[in-house]
Amino acid sequence: MARPGGASVSSSPTAAILLVGNELLSGRVRDENLPFLAAELWRRGVRVTRALVVRDDVEAIARAVRELSGEHTYVITTGGIGPTHDDRTIAGVAQAFGLRVVEDPTLASLIRNHLGDRATPAHFRMARIPEGAALEREPGSRWPVVRVRNVFLLPGVPELVRRKFAAIAPRFSGRPLHRGQIELAAEEAEIAPVLDRFAEEHPDLEVGSYPDGPVVLVTVEGPDREGVERAVERLRRLTSRWRAPS
Amino acid sequence: MARPGGASVSSSPTAAILLVGNELLSGRVRDENLPFLAAELWRRGVRVTRALVVRDDVEAIARAVRELSGEHTYVITTGGIGPTHDDRTIAGVAQAFGLRVVEDPTLASLIRNHLGDRATPAHFRMARIPEGAALEREPGSRWPVVRVRNVFLLPGVPELVRRKFAAIAPRFSGRPLHRGQIELAAEEAEIAPVLDRFAEEHPDLEVGSYPDGPVVLVTVEGPDREGVERAVERLRRLTSRWRAPS
Repeated sequence: MARPGGASVSSSPTAAILLVGNELLSGRVRDENLPFLAAELWRRGVRVTRALVVRDDVEAIARAVRELSGEHTYVITTGGIGPTHDDRTIAGVAQAFGLRVVEDPTLASLIRNHLGDRATPAHFRMARIPEGAALEREPGSRWPVVRVRNVFLLPGVPELVRRKFAAIAPRFSGRPLHRGQIELAAEEAEIAPVLDRFAEEHPDLEVGSYPDGPVVLVTVEGPDREGVERAVERLRRLTSRWRAPS
Repeated sequence: MARPGGASVSSSPTAAILLVGNELLSGRVRDENLPFLAAELWRRGVRVTRALVVRDDVEAIARAVRELSGEHTYVITTGGIGPTHDDRTIAGVAQAFGLRVVEDPTLASLIRNHLGDRATPAHFRMARIPEGAALEREPGSRWPVVRVRNVFLLPGVPELVRRKFAAIAPRFSGRPLHRGQIELAAEEAEIAPVLDRFAEEHPDLEVGSYPDGPVVLVTVEGPDREGVERAVERLRRLTSRWRAPS
């Protein structure tokens, strides 16, 4: 698939994740989809540069989709695509792009074939998609993933997100990133001067520092595996006096 | 404290949560702060209407703070306030409001008193805050929470977030919300027509429907405890044929 977003081919592809659901903003449910999707995309060399959580509200979804779609190669949404009154992602995405919501004949016949006489109007709500949306089907998956331009619509239930993402995963590929890390028995302020200089000397790498109980975890990330390994080795020497007991 | 944001006093106070950190967008770390803060604010009647995750990047933080600060009563940020090169929240918040970053004498003397000769320039980086920021101090907490207008800056480490939020929690108060819920042994499409009508008949309540393995969890939320209880009772009768085995 050609890259659908606005990013140039020369730069890394980027992604935004849009999590839809009141339950995430009331604290009733802890999201599991961002860590899963972010890790999967990271492994594939797609850089997630923004994530957003919005309520089950057509306007809020539409605005978020407009913002994110223009600025990222891909947008992945989770949640809000079921058949109940609080499922508003289809309407929100349609509104973002000024599209009508229509019943898709392929989806309608999937429902009819699967449910026969048990199918109710509520089931057929799940056949309603923004006009012109693509259905991304993979071998072995019964229900396709709806895509509108560069926006992929996933469900909210984490188990289904995993299954659906597996079906569309091959769409996402960039130059994979590598990560090395070391643990230092120090406070951040002690190692800050060394890390400062190290990060400056390696502008091509991303250096992170994370206090983690009695140690500080330092991560080094970049697209060149050997470069990352060499840099970590050098950092190990520069910080040997804070070596964490292993 | 007077409400610092743009919301009118008559409406519920709202909040946005801004999570800062590359590690959340690479999937290396699963955020624990949004569920904690969201639940705490919900209990206090403050409605979280948006959450955003951005990278450790001054521009990205500044832009997010500008967007969120104008549209919500409160903004709470987590992460990026340590002493290392990748801690950029102070700079980002300052840039959002066009403020300089200056060393605060109160914070500098806290550091000096606490560390004495051990204090290094890296420690004093933690005394640097946007000019004019307020220090929110509570009895018993050594280190204050920095506030810039309606933006409260919390650390990223979940244990510290809990401790710091406890210190500023009394600042956040609205009309508390109440929640009732029932489980139905059904598919969402079966109960959708009943839920539709029920939600329409209770425009003052928020009705949510969440597939959860073999059952659907239906939640009913609102500011009036008795109203919520009566509505849940009614919903129980309307959905009795799908009663989940308890």
